[in-house]
Amino acid sequence: MAKAIPSRSENYSEWYNELIKKADLAENSAVRGCMVIKPYGFSIWEKMQRALDDMFKETGHTNAYFPLFIPKSYLSKEASHVEGFAKECAVVTHYRLKNAEDGSGVIVDPEAKLEEELIVRPTSETVIWSTYKNWIQSYRDLPLLINQWANVVRWEMRTRIFLRTAEFLWQEGHTAHATAEEAQAETRQMLDVYAQFAEEWMAVPVIKGSKTPNERFAGAEDTLCIEAMMQDGKALQAGTSHFLGQNFAKAFDVQFLNKQNQLDYVWGTSWGVSTRLMGALIMAHSDDDGLVLPPKLAPIQVVIVPIYRTEEQLEQISAKIKPFVQELRKAGVSVKYDDSDANKPGWKFAEYELRGVPIRLAMGGRDLENGTVEIARRDLKTKETVPFYGLTERIKALLEDIQQTIYNKAKAFREEHTVTVDTFEEFQTQIENGFVLAHWDGTSETEEAIKEATKATIRCIPFDQKPEEGVCVYSGKPSKGRVVFARAY
Amino acid sequence: MAKAIPSRSENYSEWYNELIKKADLAENSAVRGCMVIKPYGFSIWEKMQRALDDMFKETGHTNAYFPLFIPKSYLSKEASHVEGFAKECAVVTHYRLKNAEDGSGVIVDPEAKLEEELIVRPTSETVIWSTYKNWIQSYRDLPLLINQWANVVRWEMRTRIFLRTAEFLWQEGHTAHATAEEAQAETRQMLDVYAQFAEEWMAVPVIKGSKTPNERFAGAEDTLCIEAMMQDGKALQAGTSHFLGQNFAKAFDVQFLNKQNQLDYVWGTSWGVSTRLMGALIMAHSDDDGLVLPPKLAPIQVVIVPIYRTEEQLEQISAKIKPFVQELRKAGVSVKYDDSDANKPGWKFAEYELRGVPIRLAMGGRDLENGTVEIARRDLKTKETVPFYGLTERIKALLEDIQQTIYNKAKAFREEHTVTVDTFEEFQTQIENGFVLAHWDGTSETEEAIKEATKATIRCIPFDQKPEEGVCVYSGKPSKGRVVFARAY
Repeated sequence: MAKAIPSRSENYSEWYNELIKKADLAENSAVRGCMVIKPYGFSIWEKMQRALDDMFKETGHTNAYFPLFIPKSYLSKEASHVEGFAKECAVVTHYRLKNAEDGSGVIVDPEAKLEEELIVRPTSETVIWSTYKNWIQSYRDLPLLINQWANVVRWEMRTRIFLRTAEFLWQEGHTAHATAEEAQAETRQMLDVYAQFAEEWMAVPVIKGSKTPNERFAGAEDTLCIEAMMQDGKALQAGTSHFLGQNFAKAFDVQFLNKQNQLDYVWGTSWGVSTRLMGALIMAHSDDDGLVLPPKLAPIQVVIVPIYRTEEQLEQISAKIKPFVQELRKAGVSVKYDDSDANKPGWKFAEYELRGVPIRLAMGGRDLENGTVEIARRDLKTKETVPFYGLTERIKALLEDIQQTIYNKAKAFREEHTVTVDTFEEFQTQIENGFVLAHWDGTSETEEAIKEATKATIRCIPFDQKPEEGVCVYSGKPSKGRVVFARAY
Repeated sequence: MAKAIPSRSENYSEWYNELIKKADLAENSAVRGCMVIKPYGFSIWEKMQRALDDMFKETGHTNAYFPLFIPKSYLSKEASHVEGFAKECAVVTHYRLKNAEDGSGVIVDPEAKLEEELIVRPTSETVIWSTYKNWIQSYRDLPLLINQWANVVRWEMRTRIFLRTAEFLWQEGHTAHATAEEAQAETRQMLDVYAQFAEEWMAVPVIKGSKTPNERFAGAEDTLCIEAMMQDGKALQAGTSHFLGQNFAKAFDVQFLNKQNQLDYVWGTSWGVSTRLMGALIMAHSDDDGLVLPPKLAPIQVVIVPIYRTEEQLEQISAKIKPFVQELRKAGVSVKYDDSDANKPGWKFAEYELRGVPIRLAMGGRDLENGTVEIARRDLKTKETVPFYGLTERIKALLEDIQQTIYNKAKAFREEHTVTVDTFEEFQTQIENGFVLAHWDGTSETEEAIKEATKATIRCIPFDQKPEEGVCVYSGKPSKGRVVFARAY
């Protein structure tokens, strides 16, 4: 495979698209806005799923499955929800095709029209809360801690693979609680789970905070989020956790008898991350030579390439490598020994670099004589020749080091590209480079005006906001702390 | 919870429905034909998924994801496929809703009509083969061994939870090969994987065989299946594996350069199992007191119930049980210690019986004195008092024994309910009780006539069919072997 992806500085957007294509992660399908996630890309998503699912279960959640279709009338039950989600969606109106009378193929059977149209779920609050109504009678039925792994559809006009697609895969947690405090604690707990996953697994540092009312989930009282910085300085919202108050309980009449034997509405949360995380993973770490994957999410952590002139030499190398592959697997390392003769070592090196395999080992004739192996790390592009003896321990330590190094690099990048500004002029210059910490007067009008002028939005009001008296960078009105502005994906 | 499920002999169908409801497995949703899989039911499905997914990967397959929507024209490309699948399906015609002018809610925006309607996938051969066209150029790209876990929709008129629902969950394998022989070997390999899963995990014995042309998958050259017997003597098709020949390759123009450097069409297979397996699992083993789950698929394998009069006694029991719970978990046993005071032990016993927990332990005051525990097995309803010492090993052995016993019981049941008949009179009597092995003349006409007369279909031409000259039980024409007839779900 020829590498030939554009550099980030040349064309960041094309670099992203070509990287996804060349690294065999995904592609656009013939169906507008829907993607095909290819095996290599899907195996990264599977690792994400497994890690997140384990974390959800450790925090007491169980999985369930709710219908793909939502009756149109359900969407209207929660007033702001319908505004947010009813607009761009896939609508099922018929349930049958028939042969065209002119023999030209199949056509929609006009007689098979649904009485009420069905919406392909853009998110499942409505169908789930309509179900919870039957599951919840008393405080003893609470909390209800359920997650669903599913596909959802939002008919986006401008799509971008992984970042914004008509159909995407995600998980959506939907919990029900007896008190506001409990629901709020859950909302925060799940945000913390997402932040932990982003930082420890994806090696992507994130800022935790609250969305402004403008940017809240349609139907939520409060939306918490984690925001990550990509290498072009733009922000990517990597996960959200919503405190729904009693909004959906009221919309679907979900009441329970509390400990005082009084009827009350249930308190809710919902939280989700999606295949969008794949986009974040790619854009946070990769370079002009291809993907850079954190070892914890890499489908192949170590690739071994033999370098040989004769069949005999290959046999000698294989005799040494094959038991070592078993040893690595036993140690929990995923490893591939690529002894195929279809491609030359140089081609293989470039290919695995493109695919982001964290560690590459190469063994040639001289290594065989010396009892050594060449070890190269993808993140720093360094290589060295080391003794074959004790290699398993070295690799395990190296994988941990790579995971940490990638995280540190992304964190340093974010710090370099985050500035504190106090004038709007400075704001306009600095917003080109990354995150801007600025005072804001707390109004939607100012937020909108800034967005209009700079394309930047308030990514969040950070939890670690320092109390600091100041004046709004735009309106000059008083402010009690800085918020995070950025252009965003 | 009051048990109160009807007995199997009273009303088999109601027993099934009520069992699913009372054991908290699933329920019908507000959307016609779509089910909600509840947490307890879903956790069984997750165990099935994990086991199957591991088996797929061991046989060299990887997962990927293809779009939910299929352009209407795709369905027409394979002639028999469209006949089989285009008829009852969910059709997306619009991509937007808008507020009704009279303020009555949202309506479909007539201006947002799709140029070409999209079908919610009933199965994915068409969309996948249209994608494979771009992935396959040479024999070096083959075989392509891909599986997808997904939801699919078939607009069934008469639905039955797990067995026949409009939306269901499944996996669908889609492979591409350079030769017919390889594709046929793959078709057979995956059927063997399904059979092994059914027998070793679900403890359900199955008959492997080929479908008659009448019962083949729409677009396949050959359909292999596994057939299981339910406790009412009816058959349930538990998995199918299709040899597609070059049909889909021709329909979507998927050609490759073979080793002789000639262009040829690719050979294909597809194979799937679905949440229907949940229905098979329930109906194969459960009894009038509730679910009976094979230990390998039971979300909770062991439940422990303390029996106490005083708080002090509970503390003493808990002090003994809690470290034991840790020990069991370390041994890989999933265990629940139910010390909640909301319900009495008798209620708990009935509840876990209903939910099919394979082993129940109870510890009371006397056990505490004697160093014993009461151990009860769900499948045989036997109980005995045994020493607490050495219990982990006993439990591990017992779980294996229960798994085997459940399988043996189902197998003995099938043998008792399978008869060889040589007259149509006998056929009509015996078909009420189970499987009938009878000679068939090999024609679709006879097959249809028998179905018309008895509601029984040919479940399969078994692989282990003995060559035996005979005459067709219906037409009197010559036959070379017996096939398996039954009424089926």
